Amino acid sequence: MNLILVEPEEIDAAGEVVLAGRRFRHLIEVLRASPGDRLRAGVVRGPRGRAEVIEATADHARLRLELDQPPSPRPNVELILAVPRPKALARAVETAAALGVGHIDLVNAWRVDKAYFQSGRLDPAELRASLRLGCEQGGSTWVPDVEVHRLLVPFIEEQLPGRLAEGPIGLVAHPGAPPLETAMRPGSGAPLIVAVGPEGGWIQREVDSFVAGGFTAISLGAGVLRTEAAVAALLAQIELLRRLR
Amino acid sequence: MNLILVEPEEIDAAGEVVLAGRRFRHLIEVLRASPGDRLRAGVVRGPRGRAEVIEATADHARLRLELDQPPSPRPNVELILAVPRPKALARAVETAAALGVGHIDLVNAWRVDKAYFQSGRLDPAELRASLRLGCEQGGSTWVPDVEVHRLLVPFIEEQLPGRLAEGPIGLVAHPGAPPLETAMRPGSGAPLIVAVGPEGGWIQREVDSFVAGGFTAISLGAGVLRTEAAVAALLAQIELLRRLR
Repeated sequence: MNLILVEPEEIDAAGEVVLAGRRFRHLIEVLRASPGDRLRAGVVRGPRGRAEVIEATADHARLRLELDQPPSPRPNVELILAVPRPKALARAVETAAALGVGHIDLVNAWRVDKAYFQSGRLDPAELRASLRLGCEQGGSTWVPDVEVHRLLVPFIEEQLPGRLAEGPIGLVAHPGAPPLETAMRPGSGAPLIVAVGPEGGWIQREVDSFVAGGFTAISLGAGVLRTEAAVAALLAQIELLRRLR
Repeated sequence: MNLILVEPEEIDAAGEVVLAGRRFRHLIEVLRASPGDRLRAGVVRGPRGRAEVIEATADHARLRLELDQPPSPRPNVELILAVPRPKALARAVETAAALGVGHIDLVNAWRVDKAYFQSGRLDPAELRASLRLGCEQGGSTWVPDVEVHRLLVPFIEEQLPGRLAEGPIGLVAHPGAPPLETAMRPGSGAPLIVAVGPEGGWIQREVDSFVAGGFTAISLGAGVLRTEAAVAALLAQIELLRRLR
């Protein structure tokens, strides 16, 4: 927890917040915070700053917020992710939030097990818990929205063209495609929409649909990776390319 | 399974191998292979080529190996990894093997829960199973060796200087340190030894020990990541830097 992240409605009129449960335990057991300590804090989609611990009991802590910094900007990478196994889903969205994405679309694909759509992990509250964990790690107040799309082709054909028309570069990760840097020059700050397939990959027809919709197929250069590792590897390579000139 | 990986002792005098268990099920259920199909195959630390399915029953398959390509080269990145939670350990070493590392040292650190050293996941057979999974994904016959070091400082002080003397660059990942590319130029093919800390990070004294031993502290530029995501992000950024000029 590199940022104590609170919801706006948790803040009382005095600018204080009471933490119990997971965040409380992390505060005490991992960060070993005690009254008087000041830690990085922020409000979901709101300002950042510090939180001073003013009281710690056996089961909760009271913190006073001092929020004098602007909200984290919306990261200008959006992620399209074929729904992975339920446990991998939680880790993948957490990793995406930690590395910073503006928005997540969870999509169906030929190689997605249809049972995954019955999983409780697709419940918005479960997803939000994973996203918040990632934002706490990454230190960002930007908790991405997540949309679930049960039909891939209508999503590609009806929704993506409008989004690409606003300017971003669309990239679809596919082993054997040209490497990422052929589609995104070092130092480029262009907004991106990146699509990561299921375990086993997109089928060729799906890649073709993305490409017909204006996306460019790219690869990470590595072999095939599990979903969460692929998300981490892709977002990390994008971040590095943006830093370079 | 992008490579059917077999141990040398599994191959009979006729150059055939019988798969049962996990690899058999993957072959039939995921790859939907049937007699006559030829798939990528390789021998651990040995040659690569194809395997032709010559028989498939309800519980095993017989394959004939045609190994006409050289072994995968030893990747010239070595990974030092503070032991993470047992489940994360399995995923982290799998990811490292998929992205390609020559050797793995699992080490203790101040923030490593000492109970992790009692975990069955540190059992060599368990580790090797995870490494093989990663190599099957990454398509490499180079299954890294793993060494476990229960004392960090003697490892840093007694073992690393000799290894660095052979030429590699030592890098220790630490949030807030200068970014990776300041210590490793784009296009550099120099061998590397990279150290990834526990959840919560190395303590400053540990980073200082690495630096005193000739390592350079670097960061991925991102926030703090879970171990497996950090391994994926770091190795992916290294791979990208090596591709660039």
